Amino acid sequence: MKKNYIGIDLGGTNIKAGVVDAQGKIISKASVATGSGPEQVVERMIQAARQAVQDSELKMADIEAVGIASPGPLSSADGVVLRSANLPGWHDVPLRDLVSKALKRPAFLENDAKSAAYGEFTAGAGADEKIANFILVTLGTGVGGGIIYHGRLLRGVSDSAGEIGHMIVDPDGDVCGCGQRGCLELYASASRTGRYAQHLLAIAPSRASSLRALLAAGATIDSRAVVEHAKMGDELANEVWDRACRFLALACVNAARWLDPQMLALAGGMAAAGNFLLHRVKQHFAQLNWKMSETKMEIVLATLGNDAGIIGAAALARDSEHQR
Amino acid sequence: MKKNYIGIDLGGTNIKAGVVDAQGKIISKASVATGSGPEQVVERMIQAARQAVQDSELKMADIEAVGIASPGPLSSADGVVLRSANLPGWHDVPLRDLVSKALKRPAFLENDAKSAAYGEFTAGAGADEKIANFILVTLGTGVGGGIIYHGRLLRGVSDSAGEIGHMIVDPDGDVCGCGQRGCLELYASASRTGRYAQHLLAIAPSRASSLRALLAAGATIDSRAVVEHAKMGDELANEVWDRACRFLALACVNAARWLDPQMLALAGGMAAAGNFLLHRVKQHFAQLNWKMSETKMEIVLATLGNDAGIIGAAALARDSEHQR
Repeated sequence: MKKNYIGIDLGGTNIKAGVVDAQGKIISKASVATGSGPEQVVERMIQAARQAVQDSELKMADIEAVGIASPGPLSSADGVVLRSANLPGWHDVPLRDLVSKALKRPAFLENDAKSAAYGEFTAGAGADEKIANFILVTLGTGVGGGIIYHGRLLRGVSDSAGEIGHMIVDPDGDVCGCGQRGCLELYASASRTGRYAQHLLAIAPSRASSLRALLAAGATIDSRAVVEHAKMGDELANEVWDRACRFLALACVNAARWLDPQMLALAGGMAAAGNFLLHRVKQHFAQLNWKMSETKMEIVLATLGNDAGIIGAAALARDSEHQR
Repeated sequence: MKKNYIGIDLGGTNIKAGVVDAQGKIISKASVATGSGPEQVVERMIQAARQAVQDSELKMADIEAVGIASPGPLSSADGVVLRSANLPGWHDVPLRDLVSKALKRPAFLENDAKSAAYGEFTAGAGADEKIANFILVTLGTGVGGGIIYHGRLLRGVSDSAGEIGHMIVDPDGDVCGCGQRGCLELYASASRTGRYAQHLLAIAPSRASSLRALLAAGATIDSRAVVEHAKMGDELANEVWDRACRFLALACVNAARWLDPQMLALAGGMAAAGNFLLHRVKQHFAQLNWKMSETKMEIVLATLGNDAGIIGAAALARDSEHQR
């Protein structure tokens, strides 16, 4: 009898649920709007999960366990979401047990970036039995990440291992929402990349840039626009993109020094730029990286896109015994 | 029958060998000058090991296995020292097998800082069964380190996990011997701390400092002198010490973000300053660290001093099955 799992990816806007087989393949998916408040959100998570099971033509009895990928901070061991910037009003919500009770299945709770990392490790960019040490860096509104070492997800004493976006890259830099100065995510997130372009346009009003037409049309400049205009040869857009890629390369160097993994994969909104991201990061990496010995860490693009959270959460439910 | 192990700590100046019991307690120790060239050095390693066994009143037959802590870069899996700044002329030396053959015992080779980390983890600062995730930072001529996670030493794909001294803290900083710019060890090693004091004295000839008397007497300023004069209230020495401690605190913040371990211990020459180091690092850590959730990582001083390498190498030989 083949085993199947549900992976639920709880986002600030949408809840995605999928039925995933033991090999990490999605059989069916469903998506609903997140809603607000723990009660409604849990209801909708159950709704999405049931919808996915129905679409898979399996029965709930065919589901072994449920994995939940949620924004945090959270306690994976306790199954509790402590609070979340993306889920206003949440405070110490026992999300794991609420979902488990409603679906009558064992459930497991993990941070969204760590879930995505485990998804890429088991079924995406890192799905190679030779790879046991793997890092995922997610480049979205913020910068997140997850680390797998010796095949195990690293959680840490307060569930905050892999908070790559909050490594300090400039102790005298701007203040981050977390209270630190100069966090990586101030320099390399998708949102900050757009904002830095707006900043450069504002401080040098006479500097030519094709991005100005966007501002004139009342649009906000996001990282996608930066990529598009940099590709078309706009110098300012290129400068902005280059700076973000250099900081990412710095993070890659430090990843190699701390952990020397076999692979580091880039994911999230900015990774949609594909090789325009990857090649630039690798160029800066070659410049910044040490020369005294070969660095074997491979830098690649993630492959699962938006499904990484669903697949990873389902895989963590599947591997819960080994991953505790 | 109680099991015993030999730990050999190969340094640029001295070779230290010890007989260590299964609990990580040193029964006897011996030390010889390192000499030069692989052949002589191996001879002296054997000599030190035999001396230690003799002093322990055990026989070589009572020794289960031998652990070797060596400068690198090296390949632990192959048992080969690739080369070393501290061992001129070494190139691809199969140190593990040379020692194993001479002593007729299984031998294991590990980097010196990683060995020390494993020693502190199993028998020093981190020797608490509640602690499974542990980082050691060694502050000597350079800055080194080792990471234990889920109870296992992290080696990495090219044996360079835990190269904490070469995390980049300022991408526009000075060039390091490794080829990178702005490595931590340029700001926080014992040797660089002394050099930075000399630099400050040189660029501001009119600035008063009790350290000037040392220079006038022809002495070199080392980190010990910086500590001593800072403690006596010298402002320049205090500024130098404070800067080193702030960079170490930055490394501690980034350690918590990457790995969120239960404990991080400071060791090596600079750790001889004791609480004068620890308290200052903790002060800066509290300032630099995020405010959005509690950081449970404890920052402490290492406890094994110069024996950490011997004890750790012996413990790695003891735990070789689990630690591969």
